[in-house]
Amino acid sequence: MHVGVDVGGTKVLAVELAGEGGDLAVASSAQVPMPGRSASDAEVEEAVAQAALEVAAGRPLSGVGVSAAGLVDRVGERVRFAAHLPWRDAPVRDRLAERIGVPVVLNNDANCAAHAELVAGALRGVSSALLVTVGTGIGGAVVLDGKVVRGANGMAGEFGHVQVVPNGLVCECGLRGCWEQYCSGRALERVTRVALGSHLDGPEVAALARDGHPVARQAFATVGTWLGVGIAGLVSALDPEAVVVGGGVSVVGDLLLEPARRGLLSSLQATTYREIPPLVPTRFGPEAGAVGAALVSAGSSRV
Amino acid sequence: MHVGVDVGGTKVLAVELAGEGGDLAVASSAQVPMPGRSASDAEVEEAVAQAALEVAAGRPLSGVGVSAAGLVDRVGERVRFAAHLPWRDAPVRDRLAERIGVPVVLNNDANCAAHAELVAGALRGVSSALLVTVGTGIGGAVVLDGKVVRGANGMAGEFGHVQVVPNGLVCECGLRGCWEQYCSGRALERVTRVALGSHLDGPEVAALARDGHPVARQAFATVGTWLGVGIAGLVSALDPEAVVVGGGVSVVGDLLLEPARRGLLSSLQATTYREIPPLVPTRFGPEAGAVGAALVSAGSSRV
Repeated sequence: MHVGVDVGGTKVLAVELAGEGGDLAVASSAQVPMPGRSASDAEVEEAVAQAALEVAAGRPLSGVGVSAAGLVDRVGERVRFAAHLPWRDAPVRDRLAERIGVPVVLNNDANCAAHAELVAGALRGVSSALLVTVGTGIGGAVVLDGKVVRGANGMAGEFGHVQVVPNGLVCECGLRGCWEQYCSGRALERVTRVALGSHLDGPEVAALARDGHPVARQAFATVGTWLGVGIAGLVSALDPEAVVVGGGVSVVGDLLLEPARRGLLSSLQATTYREIPPLVPTRFGPEAGAVGAALVSAGSSRV
Repeated sequence: MHVGVDVGGTKVLAVELAGEGGDLAVASSAQVPMPGRSASDAEVEEAVAQAALEVAAGRPLSGVGVSAAGLVDRVGERVRFAAHLPWRDAPVRDRLAERIGVPVVLNNDANCAAHAELVAGALRGVSSALLVTVGTGIGGAVVLDGKVVRGANGMAGEFGHVQVVPNGLVCECGLRGCWEQYCSGRALERVTRVALGSHLDGPEVAALARDGHPVARQAFATVGTWLGVGIAGLVSALDPEAVVVGGGVSVVGDLLLEPARRGLLSSLQATTYREIPPLVPTRFGPEAGAVGAALVSAGSSRV
């Protein structure tokens, strides 16, 4: 069996797939919390192995696909840099293969997510698209001619670190004013904290927003508007057929996507002279990265 | 013979080509000023015809390629919108074909420029690239797999209207904070006017900068830094092998490109973990759009 493991800023998620095409689904999953922000490479890698083996539950593994929230080199051997993970130019693929004892394929998380959506989700039959995942930070993927664009360094789709505010908020990547400082789970928490004077985590803000709490709804509206503004820039540059939005923050659906659609419309040039790409949720939501990683491990090759 | 005509915000430039591949060159050219900002569609089209016929100089025309500074639809029939030209959803291709009496092919100017650079200029042998033209406004093109990306609406590469400053300067497109408000010939003139208290046009500022005038040099440094910052965002999104810069403002060369390179480096994530794409001038400079249009008219098909 093949397992897909997504390594995000706050947790490691492993999935096993069942079915194919439109019937593809997650058959089982396991989640391991990230060992903390000062974790070592080895601790993160142990969490990956642990999640994969938990999903395997004693059955023989043929391979593991790993989806990482960071810059992965073009050949899928190393994580070069990850703003929310300790890996720095780390040979993650081979170290994990040795630790788990099976072949590992390594890809950027958003590229994996786009792969999952192309094969079995919101991007089936779509030729050109953008995928934006809003989680701890922002992940992204560019789809052209029905395939995920890797980029010269394997780093295409790093939308989160596009500057949207000159001299703006300091980002963990070392730059200022990066898009993900204004549109991410952390941005949601910051906006809520400023308004309420107390700290709530993303899922707590989401629960309040679903209950109609005005401050929580406004926080999603603020983050959603920034989502739309950033997407507008990418749409100006790439003119895709569709935009899919995934990641943990997107689980609230239209509470995020409606402000994003308005932000897109109000920040895009010449909207009366073009088709506006639909802005739709991913099918696989926060599991898309892990699903795509499992697909790639099993031999699918659109990423 | 085939003629290429570039229709920009301030002038119409027609060229005739000679040679091919690395030896391709402009054999002759003609320039007609734009009839003014309140010109009618017909006046602009007459200027195009006039420039084409002037280059033809009585010789029989087989076709005219037109490169337009605006949003051209995917099939190359209409200019949907052009911030600096009167055309609004105008059937420019057929009207020009009728006026001139030969087949006309119509494309976006920056896409034409990228085509020229791919066939015979700075992008020969390059698979993935960005082209940014800095003229009256900003034009752009995305190259992937050695071809110019058209986009779902034919509008890929509209970099000039990516928002770079929230609630920033009002743009002619109706939005605020568009990149071209900070990086263009008009931005250069504005920055100089603010510093000097008097108006100089772009070529005058360029001449002063070449002579070492500190205010003019600083104006190019300001515009160049914005060029680099904007390119950094596009590089984050697309991770190209190379970035080529053309357009009238780029004729000063490194006076613009050096600040741009610094801006790119200081606004790009994880620069120590990736190859930074070289930022190089176009080979055909302000003529690239017209050259590409002539190539396309003659049957070249990378645009």
